This record gives sequence, C-alpha cells and structure tokens, in this order.
Amino acid sequence: MAHALRLGRRGAGRTWPNPAVGCVIVRDGHVVGRGWTQPGGRPHAEALALERAGAAARGATAYVSLEPCAHHGRTPPCADALIAAGIARVVAPMQDTDARVSGRGFARLRAAGLEVVTGIGADEAARDHAGFFMRIETGRPRVTLKLATSFDGRIATATGESRWITGPAARAVVHGLRASHDAVMVGAGTARADDPDLTVRGRGAVMQPVRIVASRLLDVPLMGRLARTARDVPVWMVHGPEAHPETRRAWEGLGARLIPCPLQGRQLDPAALLAALGGAGLTRVFCEGGGTLAATLLAADLVDELVGFTAGLAIGAEGQPAIGALGLDRLDAAPRFRLVDTRPAGGDVLHRWVRR
Amino acid sequence: MAHALRLGRRGAGRTWPNPAVGCVIVRDGHVVGRGWTQPGGRPHAEALALERAGAAARGATAYVSLEPCAHHGRTPPCADALIAAGIARVVAPMQDTDARVSGRGFARLRAAGLEVVTGIGADEAARDHAGFFMRIETGRPRVTLKLATSFDGRIATATGESRWITGPAARAVVHGLRASHDAVMVGAGTARADDPDLTVRGRGAVMQPVRIVASRLLDVPLMGRLARTARDVPVWMVHGPEAHPETRRAWEGLGARLIPCPLQGRQLDPAALLAALGGAGLTRVFCEGGGTLAATLLAADLVDELVGFTAGLAIGAEGQPAIGALGLDRLDAAPRFRLVDTRPAGGDVLHRWVRR
Repeated sequence: MAHALRLGRRGAGRTWPNPAVGCVIVRDGHVVGRGWTQPGGRPHAEALALERAGAAARGATAYVSLEPCAHHGRTPPCADALIAAGIARVVAPMQDTDARVSGRGFARLRAAGLEVVTGIGADEAARDHAGFFMRIETGRPRVTLKLATSFDGRIATATGESRWITGPAARAVVHGLRASHDAVMVGAGTARADDPDLTVRGRGAVMQPVRIVASRLLDVPLMGRLARTARDVPVWMVHGPEAHPETRRAWEGLGARLIPCPLQGRQLDPAALLAALGGAGLTRVFCEGGGTLAATLLAADLVDELVGFTAGLAIGAEGQPAIGALGLDRLDAAPRFRLVDTRPAGGDVLHRWVRR
Repeated sequence: MAHALRLGRRGAGRTWPNPAVGCVIVRDGHVVGRGWTQPGGRPHAEALALERAGAAARGATAYVSLEPCAHHGRTPPCADALIAAGIARVVAPMQDTDARVSGRGFARLRAAGLEVVTGIGADEAARDHAGFFMRIETGRPRVTLKLATSFDGRIATATGESRWITGPAARAVVHGLRASHDAVMVGAGTARADDPDLTVRGRGAVMQPVRIVASRLLDVPLMGRLARTARDVPVWMVHGPEAHPETRRAWEGLGARLIPCPLQGRQLDPAALLAALGGAGLTRVFCEGGGTLAATLLAADLVDELVGFTAGLAIGAEGQPAIGALGLDRLDAAPRFRLVDTRPAGGDVLHRWVRR
C-alpha cells in the first residue's frame, strides 16, 4: 500500500479535478503492474497497472490508494476493469467520498466475488487526497499558505527588497511544493512588486501549475512576466466587478482566463474566490502571499496548511509584514495551527502546520 | 571528557565571573572523584574532585573541561592541588584565555612531571565557555536573545495581550535557559507591559539569575513584581544620566543595584551597557526583549545567539513586532545568523542560531 500511495503522489498537482491515485498489482509476491493517474486525470492508475500486468493480473491482488471508480466518466469504471482482468483481491485505504463512487466501487467488486480489504494506509491516503475530498465536500480547493520570512516575520525591507531572504535549499523546496499543487496564487501587490513567473524550475519538464493572481482591479502590468507567458503556462486572473472592461479584454488577448469574483467590503470575497477556483476544477492551491491576501484568507479561516520558512536574518519593524492586518481584538481569536513538521532546509528552518 | 563537560555545565549560570568547569578523576578505569564549580564560582571543580578521590588520586588521570588555574585567587591554584595529590596525567580540551592562566596551568603541570593532553572536546568546551572567554577577551558578556513569537513574528496583540503565545513546553525551555545564564535582561517597555518576575520556576531550589532592566529613565513601576522581590533575587537597573535621583534612591531603597550607562542618541548605549555588565562580572546574559532592546542590540551587532520559539498562530500586522526598527537600507545590511538547531518544543518550533 505504501508503494501505491507513493506512486499516487507522483501525480499530485497534475490530475485535477481527479484524485492522484496509485495502483500496484502483486501476484505470488511479485509486482506485475504499476500505474498512477496521468497528467490531466486519465488514464486512471488501475487501467495503466492492469495494462502492464496483462494476463498476470488473473488471481492477483491490486493495491489501490483510493476506492476504484464505479461510474462511466470520461473513462470506463475501474471497478469493471479490475473484475474483467480477473483480479482476486483489492486492497484500498478508504472510500472515495465522490457521490458517484462512495462505496459503489467496493460494492461492485464484492458483488463480482472479489475480496475487498480497506483501512490500510487510511490516514496517509486521507492526507494525500485531502484537496480532492475538500473540493468534493465543500466545493473549494485545499489551501496551503507559504510564508518565507526573516526571523522577525518580514517578507521584504521597507523599500521592497526581498531577494533573497531564504536560501537556495528553501527555494528548491518551494519549487517542489509548486509542482505538487494544482495552482500557485499570489495577490496583485506581490505580482506588481516581484514580477514573479511562478513556474516550477529545476525539476525537468513537468506539467506546470496554473498561475493565479487575485486582483480586484486587474492592476497588474501587462508587460510583466505573467502577462508575457500566459500562452505558455495558464494564467488565471481573479478580479472584482470594477475591473475595467478594456483591461479584461487585454488580459484575455494575452491568453489569460478571467474569473469574476464578488467583493466583501473593499476586497475580493475570499470564500467566493475559492469557490470559483473549485468550480474550475482545482483541488490544491498554493498561496505565496503577499501579506494582504494571506491575511484575507487567514481571517476567513480558509487556510488549511501553512508552510513557513524562517531565515537567519532580522529586517526590523519597518520591513513588510508576512501577514497583513487581521483585526484581532483578543489573542483567543487568533487563527491557530498545529505543528506537523520542523526541520532545516539548508540554512533556513522549514515548519509545516495544519489548521487546528 | 564528555563526562567532565557535562558536569561543568551543571554550574552554568551560577559560577560567574568564573567559568563553569567539570572534573572527573579516573584510576584503573574507575571514576574515583567528580566535581564541578560550585555556585558563586568556588570551590573549583578540581578541588572537589580531588577531595572525593582522596588517596585514590595518586597515579590517576584528571579530565578537566578547562585548563586548571595557576594563580592564587580566592582559592589556591588547582594546578598545584593536582600535583600535590599525585595525579599522573591531566586531560583538558583547551587553554584558559584568562591572562592569569593562559598556558601557565599546563606549564606548571608539565614542569612537575605530569603528562598533559589537550584538544579533546575542544569545540564543545569552546561553546560551553564562550561567555567566560568573551568577557575575558572583550569585557562584555555573551548575549543570547530570545524571541517567542507568532508565526508572523509578533510578540503581542495591538492591545498588548501576550499570554500565552507559546505553549507550556516552550516556556519550560525558557526557564531552563534562564537557569543556565548568569542574568536575564528586559527593556523597560516589557517590564511595564508584562510585569514579569523573570525568575526560574519549576526546577527546584536553584541559584536565580540576576534580573536586569534596561531603562533610560527608570520608569518602571515601583509596585511591580521586580521591585517587590528585589531583596530576594538581585535586580539590577541600568539607567541613563537623566534618571531622576529620587527614582534612583527609591530603587536602591528596594534593594536594587543601580548601574549608570551613557546614551547613544536617545537610547542607552548598548556597548556601554554590556561593558558595564561585564565589569560587574556577568559572562552570559539572556535577553528576553522587548522589540526595542532587541533591535538596539541587533543593530549594534551585540547578539551572539538567537533562540526563537515560533507558535502556530497568526496575530497580523497590527500586532507588536518582535524586533523594533533597525533602519536597514539594504537587505545585505541585515544582521545574519547561522542555524544550529531546530526541533519541536511541544506545539511550537524551537530554533537556535549563532552570529555568522
């Protein structure tokens, strides 16, 4: 099962709106087939593993990192394929919560006389598929917020200098995190100040995550890196009702996808923003700031995981804060997270937290 | 040697102005005597270990975590005591840089026919005695700065609420750090806002560190915890030339020690402040903030070690910064530190850094 889960993770960030599943087929103690959900979400892991296994699948055990599907989507049901191939036993950690599957895959396998074992690796699978489940259950993607700061919590000097606070090892981890998410998102302030390209670098030819800018007024330079490369790697601009129609057309002309979003007060409504991204199929969004967008998401309790990088330098109180104003009146009201990991990343500290 | 170093560390924070030394006497593979510098700095480690060993010291090896002293201070020279006891071999990591010792202890031992081995455990001993060496070499104590912050680098809400940002495990580590330092220091703002008592709790009856408040005007309440307990545990008030004579007398009347310090601009001159503390015998000072004092020390490059505790909550940009204004014009000019350790402390992250 650990092998199947590991294989499944290879697809993370590239299979949306489908889950990233892994499948290992074992007969007489030998692996006879392996597969994982392919970029774009199909073929499914089971189909690939069965294809590799061929006739060896007869009487074998299939380890699948999620309940096999039972419905006719853009691919035939994997449960049927497993039955047809003569698989004797299916081991899977948990049910798929997708209403079209939700126990029906297991039921179909059992009805056909296959042995079904569940529960093994369930915690790990729940983490791996958390974004997929969250979108199915709540309509929004899972949000990971990255904060790369000085040890006094600053992301830039007063004059906006931010390159580089963290070191190359931390930045390499960030590229890995980008690669495993469906999309990377920043606010307009960061897009203007840093002119980032938000792509994954240093990992060979990978399917790039969607690049999202949350910008109420679409006031992001049309000559910037994102604008210039919008035809190569998707750029989605989430904007408010006041964005000028001409600016909208300009971005569309550059190849960007425009996503309208209502306001909450003076800012984009964060819940509506994420609902729109979920509606567009995203299951895992990696938010890289800046401080205003981070504060908006935190204040609305819409951050599921935090990844912090703390560097060994002090910038001081004039520096730009990693998180904007939260309007807390009491410490009790502060958004709280539970530590899941801390370790060095080169000369910086990496710490991961999940929502309490 | 590891054993001697461990024993030496038992005295950390309680032997100033003397170093915290450990000594183990071994004969025929058996430990026949152990000792460590006692609170107040004497008896010395060697004297205690020799006393325990008695006649068994004859022909034995003495492992000492620093070069034995060779001068007549308030105790007779340890080198002479080792010779008189018939010790055959002395193993020590390094020379004492104190000009009164500085190789003379080893020379005296060799002259008396003892074998002297040095170098073993030198790195560890250099760390353990860093405060002692720093005071000998530069006249000031080694400074450890503690920052206990939210993950966005805040030490309190806008309204000053700071209890508790970090959890009980992190606070227990802080009490251990207080215990191993000669003194705990805060700025006047923290003394006013938190009314701390700055004592070591939860570790039985220990020699308490000196409590220092850096307060230009001595504007710290005379009814606060520090003032009320100044007769039980030393309180040193470092103040500027403008502190009112009446306030000075009031603090003296409460049992505090007053230490005058010149100004640098509008603030206490941090180099003069530390020189005064070194002059008073302190070798290791643990600074617990607040933001202004932390910034003053960092800007003057007077912080040797940083201990950070990062908690899993966000306070937002209105919160009080851990480090005040540093007046940096470029990121290059930021004070930088090298990571030496990171690990969980309960639900918080502990990270330790030393000056680059």
